[in-house]
Amino acid sequence: MIKVAFQGELGAYSELATYEFFGDDVEVMPKPAFSDIFTAVADGEADHGIIPIENSLAGSIHENYDLMLEHDLVITGEIKLRIIHNLLVNPGAELSGIRRVFSHPQGISQCKDFLAGLKNAELISVYDTAGAARRIKNDGLFDEAAIASEQAARDYGLDILASGIESNHLNFTRFNILSKELEEPSADAKTSIVFSTKNIPGALFKSLSVFALRDIDLYKIESRPIPGSPWVYMFYLDFGGDIREDVSKRAIGHLEEIASFLKFLGSYPKGKEVTSRMQERQE
Amino acid sequence: MIKVAFQGELGAYSELATYEFFGDDVEVMPKPAFSDIFTAVADGEADHGIIPIENSLAGSIHENYDLMLEHDLVITGEIKLRIIHNLLVNPGAELSGIRRVFSHPQGISQCKDFLAGLKNAELISVYDTAGAARRIKNDGLFDEAAIASEQAARDYGLDILASGIESNHLNFTRFNILSKELEEPSADAKTSIVFSTKNIPGALFKSLSVFALRDIDLYKIESRPIPGSPWVYMFYLDFGGDIREDVSKRAIGHLEEIASFLKFLGSYPKGKEVTSRMQERQE
Repeated sequence: MIKVAFQGELGAYSELATYEFFGDDVEVMPKPAFSDIFTAVADGEADHGIIPIENSLAGSIHENYDLMLEHDLVITGEIKLRIIHNLLVNPGAELSGIRRVFSHPQGISQCKDFLAGLKNAELISVYDTAGAARRIKNDGLFDEAAIASEQAARDYGLDILASGIESNHLNFTRFNILSKELEEPSADAKTSIVFSTKNIPGALFKSLSVFALRDIDLYKIESRPIPGSPWVYMFYLDFGGDIREDVSKRAIGHLEEIASFLKFLGSYPKGKEVTSRMQERQE
Repeated sequence: MIKVAFQGELGAYSELATYEFFGDDVEVMPKPAFSDIFTAVADGEADHGIIPIENSLAGSIHENYDLMLEHDLVITGEIKLRIIHNLLVNPGAELSGIRRVFSHPQGISQCKDFLAGLKNAELISVYDTAGAARRIKNDGLFDEAAIASEQAARDYGLDILASGIESNHLNFTRFNILSKELEEPSADAKTSIVFSTKNIPGALFKSLSVFALRDIDLYKIESRPIPGSPWVYMFYLDFGGDIREDVSKRAIGHLEEIASFLKFLGSYPKGKEVTSRMQERQE
């Protein structure tokens, strides 16, 4: 069985993303911190890691960008999971009896339209959505609910009283799969790099020219500070193509002429947007 | 007296930045949330607002980028404040007697080398540095300390037992000043805009070309998601020059040919890096 490390506890959206990417025959390894995922893969304790890199509403998870720079792992896959929030309760509880709803602050704010209908319920912020589910399970009360993933319902034996309760359904989290080695090149690939530029006029413009002049698509650019060098930045870039293709190699070679630092982070098949299979079974 | 709204409570680094930018003849207005600053300025309750936009170690404060897009204020100034952490205690307390240190998690992690020397002290994370100072003042105990600004020492009548205890002294926070109207153009100006691009090949490269081809300096680019449009981004850009100068006007006119959306956020004198005057008096 493939062993995959994720951050959080059982029931986290990262656990759901793991099953969606690898299928059901996988051993999940919950880890307290993102950095633990990198260590687990580097040490061989896990075959792969899965990290959230970007949410389509909240933006990038910068800690994971920084960790990719620090560690020497490669990205070998990507999945864009639709974040479907559910109201979980202990079996037997009813909507009209709910007096306390627990979730991560983002879970609460993303479900504010639904929660406006629960006039008698107090909204209580906790550290994460999976922890909210575990909490109401442990309390065993009929007047408590949690906003969390359907994976949390499965892991803690809770009922889903309402599903898809998020106000904006175009809520996706993009996860990257981390591994020690690259896998086979794919026809529909994407490459991630991080670089800083020399202190020359138009440095970023010149950096992007190496892709534009070769008609290479850019998917994402993210700037991050360089500790100890105020107002100078690292740029994380995702572009179309595999590093083992000639045009990508030439673009990277060209970028090396402009960059003061460049690190390859991985080439991997472009991820698809997925709604969870469990969710599909319910619909 | 000029009225300036900032986020946090008395003693916050934002309050210190306010005095550094405006001088001592200013009425500070603490506000619970960043959005309250924008509302206070828009409603005329405050003459100006001050918001942290970027820290040189931790990166951008994305919430404030998003709020600048939502509200119709302009940036009229900038200040880069060196973040000097201090160990504050109740008058009479000694370093050897400290058993509990309160601060924001970032304050604690940024002073980890200093704190490693306080072997008997428990480190306790609280919501903000100013709140940590208020807390130890209220407790009135000699075995408690807070990591906070020197402004917090002044506001709460605490003693500074150690100053400059952060591990990395190249720790700056850049603040923007918000106003209803632009002020006089300056010779050494900077302009901030936000835009999204049309769905055309090389869109970002073409957008940057309008600056590079006119030898206009780019200081910062920051991408943010567009809610409801997964994997499409807004770009926040800071460039050299004032919007009322001809070359800037032409660049913006050119960018409008490429952009699907463009908003001007302000032209203002470039901010200097400042170490607080209080700090200088101590040194």
